[in-house]
Amino acid sequence: MEPWRTAITTHDETHIWVKGYDVTRLMTHHTFSDTIFLLYKGRLPEPSERRLIDAILSASADHGPGSPSAAAARLAASGNRESFSAAIAAGVLAIGDAHGGAGEACMEMIAAGVELAHRESISISQAAGQVLTEARTQGKRLPGLGHRTHSIDPRAEVLFELAHQGGLAGEGVAFLQELEEQTRQKIKPLPINVDGAIAAVLFDLGFPPAAGKLLFIIGRVAGLTVEVLEEYTREKPMRVKIPVVYDGPAPLDAE
Amino acid sequence: MEPWRTAITTHDETHIWVKGYDVTRLMTHHTFSDTIFLLYKGRLPEPSERRLIDAILSASADHGPGSPSAAAARLAASGNRESFSAAIAAGVLAIGDAHGGAGEACMEMIAAGVELAHRESISISQAAGQVLTEARTQGKRLPGLGHRTHSIDPRAEVLFELAHQGGLAGEGVAFLQELEEQTRQKIKPLPINVDGAIAAVLFDLGFPPAAGKLLFIIGRVAGLTVEVLEEYTREKPMRVKIPVVYDGPAPLDAE
Amino acid sequence: MEPWRTAITTHDETHIWVKGYDVTRLMTHHTFSDTIFLLYKGRLPEPSERRLIDAILSASADHGPGSPSAAAARLAASGNRESFSAAIAAGVLAIGDAHGGAGEACMEMIAAGVELAHRESISISQAAGQVLTEARTQGKRLPGLGHRTHSIDPRAEVLFELAHQGGLAGEGVAFLQELEEQTRQKIKPLPINVDGAIAAVLFDLGFPPAAGKLLFIIGRVAGLTVEVLEEYTREKPMRVKIPVVYDGPAPLDAE
Amino acid sequence: MEPWRTAITTHDETHIWVKGYDVTRLMTHHTFSDTIFLLYKGRLPEPSERRLIDAILSASADHGPGSPSAAAARLAASGNRESFSAAIAAGVLAIGDAHGGAGEACMEMIAAGVELAHRESISISQAAGQVLTEARTQGKRLPGLGHRTHSIDPRAEVLFELAHQGGLAGEGVAFLQELEEQTRQKIKPLPINVDGAIAAVLFDLGFPPAAGKLLFIIGRVAGLTVEVLEEYTREKPMRVKIPVVYDGPAPLDAE
Repeated sequence: MEPWRTAITTHDETHIWVKGYDVTRLMTHHTFSDTIFLLYKGRLPEPSERRLIDAILSASADHGPGSPSAAAARLAASGNRESFSAAIAAGVLAIGDAHGGAGEACMEMIAAGVELAHRESISISQAAGQVLTEARTQGKRLPGLGHRTHSIDPRAEVLFELAHQGGLAGEGVAFLQELEEQTRQKIKPLPINVDGAIAAVLFDLGFPPAAGKLLFIIGRVAGLTVEVLEEYTREKPMRVKIPVVYDGPAPLDAE
Repeated sequence: MEPWRTAITTHDETHIWVKGYDVTRLMTHHTFSDTIFLLYKGRLPEPSERRLIDAILSASADHGPGSPSAAAARLAASGNRESFSAAIAAGVLAIGDAHGGAGEACMEMIAAGVELAHRESISISQAAGQVLTEARTQGKRLPGLGHRTHSIDPRAEVLFELAHQGGLAGEGVAFLQELEEQTRQKIKPLPINVDGAIAAVLFDLGFPPAAGKLLFIIGRVAGLTVEVLEEYTREKPMRVKIPVVYDGPAPLDAE
Repeated sequence: MEPWRTAITTHDETHIWVKGYDVTRLMTHHTFSDTIFLLYKGRLPEPSERRLIDAILSASADHGPGSPSAAAARLAASGNRESFSAAIAAGVLAIGDAHGGAGEACMEMIAAGVELAHRESISISQAAGQVLTEARTQGKRLPGLGHRTHSIDPRAEVLFELAHQGGLAGEGVAFLQELEEQTRQKIKPLPINVDGAIAAVLFDLGFPPAAGKLLFIIGRVAGLTVEVLEEYTREKPMRVKIPVVYDGPAPLDAE
Repeated sequence: MEPWRTAITTHDETHIWVKGYDVTRLMTHHTFSDTIFLLYKGRLPEPSERRLIDAILSASADHGPGSPSAAAARLAASGNRESFSAAIAAGVLAIGDAHGGAGEACMEMIAAGVELAHRESISISQAAGQVLTEARTQGKRLPGLGHRTHSIDPRAEVLFELAHQGGLAGEGVAFLQELEEQTRQKIKPLPINVDGAIAAVLFDLGFPPAAGKLLFIIGRVAGLTVEVLEEYTREKPMRVKIPVVYDGPAPLDAE
């Protein structure tokens, strides 16, 4: 078999290097968020960049057992006590475009909007207007706006504040805030949710669109580990009873 | 890398052989349950053996969306619509000793009980008595007995009938039925559940204990595919709202 | 929480009904492939239909440890011996549009092609020609054609034979065979692979496009259970050594 | 359905509290490792504690594509490009007692050894001696010692240094270092590996044994996200060809 190639990590018998950095140096002098930044960007972050990565990961960590990822993890743990990995993986599998992963589509939308502004030499505000019009015409949802639980997502506001304080808010943040404002004026208030705020900030940090989903996954796994641990510790196996109503074909009488 | 070795399947450019059988022959003349039997036993089944495998797999296929496997699959599908595999895998992950997988532990218990009878030259009934006494002394549950929903598990009864009709009920079935009878007399009625019946029958068919879990997984995946398909087709993303009560530390006042 | 609705399976304390059929009846008189057909179609199959379902599932069951699904399952089993479910789920997760799941896209292509023929009142052959031309223009791959291992996929040929013998080969089979023929004439020989043949046959059986992926998953899980069992039984944990070559940034010198 | 209870996270329409801490406070003033410490311990860490958590997570993040978790993730990504979650979950599933998870068993061993020292009023060194003798008698492996790649695991040494510098090295670190020393004298050199060092340090931080596996999972998921991203970005689907040798039954001749 041909060797698999990688540009991320290498090691010899007594060293491990991540993106060229000796792992013992990362362990001794840096934070986990530094290592994550390094894995994505190939360099260590400035303090203001580190603050944003830490904020994104803490914002994503947990939202209680009712979110689909935690609920799926707990249901798996309810039937299968043999493997933490199994229950945590079940939680990860619930993360997608509809839960936790809208940041990826939102980053793609932001990238397209900013690219439109540059290409057409129009303002970010005008580009947001065009993207909104196009989405309405095609009946498409705007990723990153609206939340089923929160009328104002507190995590989104803080992320933007931190980005502005650190001098890191750029066209991504500007575009998404314009889009929110114009949506409020032309349709209805749909506040930027945490996925959207993460997307805008990561865009301005120069991360690829996939990071809008992947950083949420890293953060959420921290919460899933304690959700599963609590399920194992406090609850009996098979304790969940989902109420079900059947509306299919009636039982047949005879054999 | 050294080649990985296998004794299951091989192929050349125009053939695939499963345990030595050309797959086109299996496709043309045999059932899927024949192929499954072949994968485990290295030979094709007799008709009475095929009947039991088909019955085990149909018995395991589905128990509605409320079982942990189907519920975990649906929750994953609720957040992640991008991949059928992801939702089905989440369902598989909920299968363990507490859900669907008790057959494995039950087969190990049966194997130990039958071995005890042979070694000590005692009857199967006496061996069942010893296993029961030991479990009570150690406060252990008996795998394969009791069900949270069914007072009598209809699938267990039918499996035993089919095993007897086919002349295939042996020491495994005898042992588990003795154990159920003595549990009823000495403790309380704990009817054999479907996991237990599958275990007893598979023991008598000469399958390894792991099969008590693995055949359930094969059967249940059939049901999980349509549970996920129904979730995708009939329900909106993020439709599940699990009610949650919080009993942790009170919110702190100040920053 | 509102009850979850389902039209698949219901039960009371002593019965389970799948699509209205008492599960004990399915266990006693029917095959596992009957139950699968019932789950998808809401009725039991005719003998010629059962033959095709059995053939599809046996064709999908295993292709050796080198296929991505079996290899992922074995790698998971190599690190995690605590849960069969975990290793099997890892294998399921490798199934997608590129491996085992092309049947879904192929069924969508067939459905579009057949619909085109009806809408435009052209022949199936003409519709296949238009679909091929469009794919070439857009530089798209044709799902269901070509295989990385087999120059002629023996499983595809047998499926078509069985469909013809049973009088079940319809517009789906005709469309895909036309597409293969015109591809050979206009581009190069790209034989129909097993995903494609499954797709064509399932289309003619009236299954939804998702079934092109889902039935492969059901079949393959049977093989994954024995692949994992063999890994647990014959191999040591952590035995796999993947050769790796690093082409990333050079190790930095100093701290 | 009865509400699910939790003591981890709660929220109202405009707030989220993790262990009583407003998430916006964590985002603004704290690191991701602080949030993780809080999730496990219910309080924020001291600087020396934070250093250890960061070091544990960075140490676990990545070891290249050849480790079972990264390899399983890449194989899943090779067949299934539809869902990052699916590939990352496949990687998580490879984490178990044999890969990344030995910290859990090691923490249980340490806890038992330290408890033995207290109960019998013997020294940590004597307790380590007894544990070693018992393991040799029973032919058991010592979790946390030895590595298939590294003769000296650089990550283990750094963790112990940091624990000593921070004044946090306690009976857990002492026990494991005694065990390593006595193993070297009585059997052969088996250096403490990263799982073992993480276990010893987490024991001294007062974490439960499960954390020995769970913190590795959190750290490794960061690496898995970029391993999968690299696979998607640099490699074609289905590019992996695992070499296989078949040693099963010979193909049968006739039908």
